[in-house]
Amino acid sequence: MKSATDVRCCTIEGMTAADAEPWPTPRGASRPVLTPTYEGDFVLDESLKLECGRVLPFPTLHYAVYGRLNAARDNAVLVCHALSGSALVGSWWPEVFAPGAVLSLEHDFVICINMLGSCYGSTGPGSVNPATGDVYGPDFPLVSIRDNVRAQARLLDSLGVRKLRLVLGGSIGGMQTVDWTLEYPNRVERAVIIGVAPLSAMGLALNHLQRQAIQHDPEWLGGRYLPQRPPRRGLSLARQVGMMSYKSVELFDERYGRNPNRKGEDPWAVDGASGGGLIGGRFDIAGYLDYQGERFVERFDANSYLAILRTMDIWDPMRGHGTPEEAFGGIRAKLTIVGISTDWLFPEATVRRFAEQILSAGVDAEYREMISLHGHDAFLAEQAELVRLIQ
Amino acid sequence: MKSATDVRCCTIEGMTAADAEPWPTPRGASRPVLTPTYEGDFVLDESLKLECGRVLPFPTLHYAVYGRLNAARDNAVLVCHALSGSALVGSWWPEVFAPGAVLSLEHDFVICINMLGSCYGSTGPGSVNPATGDVYGPDFPLVSIRDNVRAQARLLDSLGVRKLRLVLGGSIGGMQTVDWTLEYPNRVERAVIIGVAPLSAMGLALNHLQRQAIQHDPEWLGGRYLPQRPPRRGLSLARQVGMMSYKSVELFDERYGRNPNRKGEDPWAVDGASGGGLIGGRFDIAGYLDYQGERFVERFDANSYLAILRTMDIWDPMRGHGTPEEAFGGIRAKLTIVGISTDWLFPEATVRRFAEQILSAGVDAEYREMISLHGHDAFLAEQAELVRLIQ
Repeated sequence: MKSATDVRCCTIEGMTAADAEPWPTPRGASRPVLTPTYEGDFVLDESLKLECGRVLPFPTLHYAVYGRLNAARDNAVLVCHALSGSALVGSWWPEVFAPGAVLSLEHDFVICINMLGSCYGSTGPGSVNPATGDVYGPDFPLVSIRDNVRAQARLLDSLGVRKLRLVLGGSIGGMQTVDWTLEYPNRVERAVIIGVAPLSAMGLALNHLQRQAIQHDPEWLGGRYLPQRPPRRGLSLARQVGMMSYKSVELFDERYGRNPNRKGEDPWAVDGASGGGLIGGRFDIAGYLDYQGERFVERFDANSYLAILRTMDIWDPMRGHGTPEEAFGGIRAKLTIVGISTDWLFPEATVRRFAEQILSAGVDAEYREMISLHGHDAFLAEQAELVRLIQ
Repeated sequence: MKSATDVRCCTIEGMTAADAEPWPTPRGASRPVLTPTYEGDFVLDESLKLECGRVLPFPTLHYAVYGRLNAARDNAVLVCHALSGSALVGSWWPEVFAPGAVLSLEHDFVICINMLGSCYGSTGPGSVNPATGDVYGPDFPLVSIRDNVRAQARLLDSLGVRKLRLVLGGSIGGMQTVDWTLEYPNRVERAVIIGVAPLSAMGLALNHLQRQAIQHDPEWLGGRYLPQRPPRRGLSLARQVGMMSYKSVELFDERYGRNPNRKGEDPWAVDGASGGGLIGGRFDIAGYLDYQGERFVERFDANSYLAILRTMDIWDPMRGHGTPEEAFGGIRAKLTIVGISTDWLFPEATVRRFAEQILSAGVDAEYREMISLHGHDAFLAEQAELVRLIQ
């Protein structure tokens, strides 16, 4: 295996927790952006055999590290990111690094690895397939959470990290965290899993809607669009469906209510800007969603979005197992599982049931409920509260 | 005013409560379809001046009646339908007419009037504008709930109905019911308002997503599509977003869970039917939503959908009033307001707060909660339970 060769340090705009803030980001709300000790690429020196049966030849994992590995090599922490996150955990989870919080730049060696399928440096649909010399596009294979975890383990090997004192993540990051405790029981001491369970039918429905929004965009071209002409409207709509499911009814009401669009549109006007009387001016919540959609299109790739939706869809650690003991009995880490009170994508009751299933397998696990108005996004939007809960 | 001239009796397929059933409709679940005493059109003999300032010249209201008006003219009931409903209330709400239930074919004279903007007989975007000789299309004006109620009152006048012993409806039908008690306080004795309140920010968000799904369809052509080439994929996606919000997480989980599509697709397959590894086979819930979308496209019009979404968006009886007394103080009817426990589009707590607002205005109103797993759709899907609650 080659070690990382390319040192870069860039801030990927718009990927911070500010996504969770009202638009535009309120003044004074900017958070400290932490600079990684190192950011670069790791290229596997062989093909990654995927669960689906296909292989990913010599995939790249883009990653960032914060702090330094100590001599005893016992201070490593792995943070796993969510759907549209990046390896730059210091940029999107800064308060988790605050003095006295969960992670310490002084004492920990924190690693975060971009998911396969993403557009933030790791191999994804926008990468060139070495077997053909062409961009993967729609031929990018189905990569599971477990495939990701296995590739990540190789990267950790190359860094000399055998043991992880902690693995943590929210949403899809939580799926990776669970699979770490299953796949490498002797390498993980503690795991914190936030706002996640296998997707329920409603979660699968939401992903189905997002998928269609992209597929229906005539610019998508069956996944063979050019980078300069992406399916913007489809990806924007998909993101808006997502944003809706990441927030709570209560938060939306408190922030936007039935106010007209803050930029001056009138929902009661006789004729809208286009579409005549059938469309009309926007309410503030519609302006907010459009704004989030437009921002997202600037920073994310439609095929990457589709690839990771599917990775998320098929994650189900109970699949193929008859009992929770069979599925989870091998876990050796101490688990903390967090459900979010107003989460609609992964309802609190669903996460609690998932935790109970793991507990029933005899695993050393505890369940905690995070009380927040922020819905699924709470683990990004209310970091101080999350820190208090999982410390 | 002309009275109705055209007697028709058709069953509009797919408009029954079976929309709320798993696909395909389970055997034995077919419900009795009641035949109206009369079904026809009423044409206003003058222009309807709309709240938005525009006029609708000589609009048609398509309506159906069941039973007969008695000599005392005191047995009239008005039922108001929801977004995609029709005047044929006997077809979509048959159990409300069951012996001993809320309505009686023997004793009541039940009237149901298709909403303006709809595609089921009343004037809508697909109608010809007498002022231009062309189809309205996107030039169809913004019609409010109050506009509908005012037009409906003219039709009742022509039928010789002054008093309504009962007005009732769910969802947008509930909005009409509220406006009846506000606009004609002396004509309504009792009103039953089910699963509705002014749309919250989340509701407005859901409508914004549905609107975009249609607008983004290249076949929509700014609303000027030909009837034989409608924006099918956009309308299907819009309906699917709607269906998702009409149901509950619990019901979807119970019915579909994480099962693969019942027609044999494999979500874990390496390559999907189209879109390669990025799409994949469907889960059962996705097959269900697609099926509902396809059925809906066969029976409903995209511009009508847009028109009624906007009618729904702008309904807010508190608008322009400083206090609940000012807004609701004039109501004379006895009100029953029903919230549905798992409703996500009009959450139970939101409906309860709306009821409390009306109560605080000194109105004779009571609030009841309907316990159901069916979400917003419960008023169509669990009619027997609804009947028990409002009897």
